[in-house]
Amino acid sequence: MADIFAKQLSPVMRTMTGPGPRPLYQAVEGRNGEALTGGARVVMAACNDYLGLADDPRVSEAAVRAVQRYGTSCSGSRLIGGTLPLHEELERAVAAFLGQEAAIVTTTGCQANLALSPLFGRGDVVFGDMANHASLVDAVQAGRAGSRRYRHCDMGHLERQLAAADGEAAKVIITDGLFSAEGDLCPLPELVGLARRHDARLVIDGAHDIGLLGAGGRGVAEHFGLMDEVDLYTGTFSKCFGSIGGFLAGPAEVIHFLRYTARSVLFTASMPPASAAAAVAALKIIASEPERRMRVFEVARRVRNGLRELGFDTGESLTPIVPVHIGDTGLCGRMWQAVLDEGVFTSVMVAPGVAEGHALIRLALQATHTDDHIARILEAFATAGRRLGAATAGAR
Amino acid sequence: MADIFAKQLSPVMRTMTGPGPRPLYQAVEGRNGEALTGGARVVMAACNDYLGLADDPRVSEAAVRAVQRYGTSCSGSRLIGGTLPLHEELERAVAAFLGQEAAIVTTTGCQANLALSPLFGRGDVVFGDMANHASLVDAVQAGRAGSRRYRHCDMGHLERQLAAADGEAAKVIITDGLFSAEGDLCPLPELVGLARRHDARLVIDGAHDIGLLGAGGRGVAEHFGLMDEVDLYTGTFSKCFGSIGGFLAGPAEVIHFLRYTARSVLFTASMPPASAAAAVAALKIIASEPERRMRVFEVARRVRNGLRELGFDTGESLTPIVPVHIGDTGLCGRMWQAVLDEGVFTSVMVAPGVAEGHALIRLALQATHTDDHIARILEAFATAGRRLGAATAGAR
Repeated sequence: MADIFAKQLSPVMRTMTGPGPRPLYQAVEGRNGEALTGGARVVMAACNDYLGLADDPRVSEAAVRAVQRYGTSCSGSRLIGGTLPLHEELERAVAAFLGQEAAIVTTTGCQANLALSPLFGRGDVVFGDMANHASLVDAVQAGRAGSRRYRHCDMGHLERQLAAADGEAAKVIITDGLFSAEGDLCPLPELVGLARRHDARLVIDGAHDIGLLGAGGRGVAEHFGLMDEVDLYTGTFSKCFGSIGGFLAGPAEVIHFLRYTARSVLFTASMPPASAAAAVAALKIIASEPERRMRVFEVARRVRNGLRELGFDTGESLTPIVPVHIGDTGLCGRMWQAVLDEGVFTSVMVAPGVAEGHALIRLALQATHTDDHIARILEAFATAGRRLGAATAGAR
Repeated sequence: MADIFAKQLSPVMRTMTGPGPRPLYQAVEGRNGEALTGGARVVMAACNDYLGLADDPRVSEAAVRAVQRYGTSCSGSRLIGGTLPLHEELERAVAAFLGQEAAIVTTTGCQANLALSPLFGRGDVVFGDMANHASLVDAVQAGRAGSRRYRHCDMGHLERQLAAADGEAAKVIITDGLFSAEGDLCPLPELVGLARRHDARLVIDGAHDIGLLGAGGRGVAEHFGLMDEVDLYTGTFSKCFGSIGGFLAGPAEVIHFLRYTARSVLFTASMPPASAAAAVAALKIIASEPERRMRVFEVARRVRNGLRELGFDTGESLTPIVPVHIGDTGLCGRMWQAVLDEGVFTSVMVAPGVAEGHALIRLALQATHTDDHIARILEAFATAGRRLGAATAGAR
């Protein structure tokens, strides 16, 4: 008899869970650029807390005070019984930081992206980068609009799709600001130009760039001097903010509409007090300590340059996310293990996180990495690369 | 020009956000059965922390210690860099508690339900109660299976649907264990019988019942003595566990498959350390202090009986969720306000949380409610009901 439990993993996942290195679900305790894993103390190069705020005592103290004052849960949705004045304070702070009229915070960053779906109505058309985060893809699928996906950062492809679309349809372009697998930026000036010419709204997921990019940490739009040209932002507190949760920020009317229609907001318990308080504290540090951004970019530049000198293919990244392109899934796992054996914890990205056959090792650098950490990362790749011949095996 | 931002709220939501009472998004700080809202100290009767564990010092201390040891975030998905030994400890504890081979924890309870979708493959058929939680509905929509929805707890309707389905298709029945709006239980013995006769798998969402029902707190299946007859459990830590996050528990092979395929697991930052530690601490209390369950059922029984004596329609609930059926959206808002004016904070459920025209006031009782709280709740409803004539306006 047929059984819904009789399902098979993909070949890629069978490789990653079979005999040999097991880079996925590896337990690790990371703090301040280092980590404990399998009993060994190593350099942590797989943590998206780019500014090191999850380890900042001011952020931790805010979380502890919130637990003491509010307890460990709100136990209800924002809609009914789960709204603390603290959530409202965080929403005002996010809106002010991004220069938007209003913001709403969500329990996870993914749920912020899913909350876009009520905007994607029947007859509307959504244009999305093929490398967009899974939660943006899921938000489009959950909505009722038509979906067009353009090749990664290919503005010619996007323009042809816009031109071919029904002129009467409401249109929106959605894109990651900073792509999380390969660390490259969306071509925002070109996106703004296309959005204007085709009367499309522009929505940016700032999960990895808000807090990190721009003189004030406002993300990719500030980096390009285009803060006024983005119609709606989404983002997360789980990367630069050293917490968990997400947000949407934009026009008051749009945020108001989503507050009462987004299922990922209506039907989930609200951000716990500790997480909301940590995000409030982190936002103050993000706004006032640009030296953290400068440090992590300096760390990333040195690691990237060092890896390139060793012959590794680090792609187009100019950010603290540094991909090392490997290609083959099995080789990627062995390289991950070899680098770990040399004392550095990294992560791997395989399908469906990246396209099949484009497996990569992903380094995430942090402001808390020291010069010694940088040296140890480069040494580990040099030794592991020699052992496996992976440096010359890079394939895109 | 058409604009994706030009969207309208539903009539129900326009009523709830227009002039008059505003029960939704009302900020409230609730602790130990009481709450502060709008400057007033009131009885809190809208908190799903049924056992009062979000205010338990042992749970709070566990959260504080986790912040001190691990910081405020894992900043990565469980898959890559976001797995602490603490997550694994929680998974082992949940699996052991429910007598299952394995468990996986997720960042929110909704994300646990969404994680079911890879089991819903093309050609499979999912049978779901029409009153199921939104996140179960969304999980079915995100999957590829056919969807059949049976009238709430209507076993005849379900049986006809099962009989009419393709005999070769893999089938699964999914249901809330305890329905969150009205506080009634799924008819588990009948569901088990139908599942057996039609070779369907049975999945129970224990969001509101695990921790609360059964001698050991194992939920609706323990309550009915049918722990061995459920194929897979989902649940949340945001209600009885006084934390946030969710879980799936079942056969090791199924959990293993979902670990590597569920997008709501793969593509979201993991449970923060404080939330995981709080859940571990809460589970120990749930397993060892049945007196909390006895107390909250006693509180609920007295409130329910008192409301019925006052003439309110509290439906079929036998649990700490007590609905007061009102029907009309506007009247429900006015009743909520009148009860609040008398010193009791409740919540309202309107469409799409319940069927349109079936608005209700929802009370959630807690083990931490005192006899004085019970008296104040009943007095508030008596006074408010007299003022508005709502007691006799109940409509189902």
